[in-house]
Amino acid sequence: MKQKIQAAIVGYGNLGKGVRKAINQSEDIELVAIFTRREPGQLEAGEAGVKFEHISAVEQYKGKVDVMILCGGSATDLPEQTPAIARMFNTVDSFDTHAKIPEFYETVDAAAKQGGTLSVISTGWDPGLFSMNRLLAEAILPQGKEYTFWGKGVSQGHSDAIRRVDGVKAGVQYTVPVQEVIEAIRAGETPELTTRQKHLRECFVVAEAGADQERIRAEIVNMPNYFADYDTTVTFITEEELAAQHSGIPHGGFVIRSGVTGEGTKQIVEFGLKLESNPEFTASVLVAYARAAQRMSQEGQSGARTVFDIPLGMLSPKSPEELRRNLL
Amino acid sequence: MKQKIQAAIVGYGNLGKGVRKAINQSEDIELVAIFTRREPGQLEAGEAGVKFEHISAVEQYKGKVDVMILCGGSATDLPEQTPAIARMFNTVDSFDTHAKIPEFYETVDAAAKQGGTLSVISTGWDPGLFSMNRLLAEAILPQGKEYTFWGKGVSQGHSDAIRRVDGVKAGVQYTVPVQEVIEAIRAGETPELTTRQKHLRECFVVAEAGADQERIRAEIVNMPNYFADYDTTVTFITEEELAAQHSGIPHGGFVIRSGVTGEGTKQIVEFGLKLESNPEFTASVLVAYARAAQRMSQEGQSGARTVFDIPLGMLSPKSPEELRRNLL
Repeated sequence: MKQKIQAAIVGYGNLGKGVRKAINQSEDIELVAIFTRREPGQLEAGEAGVKFEHISAVEQYKGKVDVMILCGGSATDLPEQTPAIARMFNTVDSFDTHAKIPEFYETVDAAAKQGGTLSVISTGWDPGLFSMNRLLAEAILPQGKEYTFWGKGVSQGHSDAIRRVDGVKAGVQYTVPVQEVIEAIRAGETPELTTRQKHLRECFVVAEAGADQERIRAEIVNMPNYFADYDTTVTFITEEELAAQHSGIPHGGFVIRSGVTGEGTKQIVEFGLKLESNPEFTASVLVAYARAAQRMSQEGQSGARTVFDIPLGMLSPKSPEELRRNLL
Repeated sequence: MKQKIQAAIVGYGNLGKGVRKAINQSEDIELVAIFTRREPGQLEAGEAGVKFEHISAVEQYKGKVDVMILCGGSATDLPEQTPAIARMFNTVDSFDTHAKIPEFYETVDAAAKQGGTLSVISTGWDPGLFSMNRLLAEAILPQGKEYTFWGKGVSQGHSDAIRRVDGVKAGVQYTVPVQEVIEAIRAGETPELTTRQKHLRECFVVAEAGADQERIRAEIVNMPNYFADYDTTVTFITEEELAAQHSGIPHGGFVIRSGVTGEGTKQIVEFGLKLESNPEFTASVLVAYARAAQRMSQEGQSGARTVFDIPLGMLSPKSPEELRRNLL
């Protein structure tokens, strides 16, 4: 019987909770501990069957944890946590600030090489699975046009922006891809699309009692960066409706490449996700890449890796022979 | 300026022709020669700008070709050609007899290790891209159900079977996935499906003058292995209609995994292809993997590899830095 991979979680928000659930579904991975900035005793009292530790205790787990699954945010947590922890442990994270990935990669690569560890950075679904499909389809169809659509799904940043508007008590924003445009691309068209033509933004807003709804609507739809470049709808609902119908965190989207081979032969490659829970799915991707991180480390590799550097076979608990026999 | 990858084609049917076109679209790959069992002089007379050689001259190209792209059939060509050529050159092929892949892998692996070369076997789209998506989605969503649908597309084997029926002059068979079933799966259902429920078979047949069409129809729809387990339609058409409307070789399909995370949270991952030319697309996949074969060989690797063993970054002519900056 092979030794199970000893994993730990750093950060226990929606993503960390999702990782815990995903580890539960993985027969070859065992959860050693969850590290948090909060009071571990309090968390432990509320949840049975798992060890909580304060983040400051991470170092004491050297030799006891094969891979740390980092579930902090990209804005402030990961830029600090990933390099610090990569000096001691194999890691996997979902750093998703696209523009800063090259710099983040260099920093983590240096830290992991120093520690002799392996760090998978920026995995999840975008960056992650979507990136892989962009690369794959472009490598196969160099002459072509790529489209990425997101949604229908909740955008946390846009929901936060709504809630900052005066007179708004609560609210949620859905990014919605324009279905007619997707159908046209699937049918072989390769349109040039503006931001407005690709996605709609649907806002569901709970207004404070007595607030001017028309003023709120105008402030939202004209908000620069967030809404002004989109067709945005604002629907006022009650707090009860918000709780009953908008408490999930669904997301998804499509990567479509419409390419041409030979003399004008159309070839279309499409990858799509339809997710009832964005954080639970991202967590499941992290856990599969945690398995890969541990394996590559055991092979003696160290440094930073992205989804582009990792053979798919590394993600599966099955042996190469089994994969060739049953999945190829 | 980097040296271009020197590639050659072995076998010049539809697939080999597609590879030639795909190499034309690849700035980092150069076509050295096309090897054929036919008379090379005759082929060369008909097509400008490329060197044809008899297959027996392969050995003379040692040191001049970085990777041989093998475009023969899986029934008799590749089981013999791949191991023989892998002893001398890096290779890539589309061996697609699923049941024989494990044995084929072992044979080619031994030959390539003996030759110090690298062989990518069984790539294309199924086996190939579809296999990769089956593995990826299963690794991420271990609790779930996977569906592979093929079509709408031409099945060569079924078209051949039609043409063997007495009184049939010509014909073509399309495999058609049942759209309602796909929509149900996309909507979250996970039905148990019989063969009949997943695909239809549509036959377009040119009958000999005076042949009994009802007898032909009955022979086709009741043919064991090929049609008896499916709902099959037979439409009689003229030779002119066949030439005008059914001369393409379209194909495609979908790999859908419907999984569950946490407490019953539905997550759906889908990969789909819509191809106007099956051989041209398969050829484009082969060329991307030829690039990977040459690179892995240059790193000092040897032996057989499948799509499960190869990092996606190897498929792209772009540098790892460029991929992280622009595609991640």
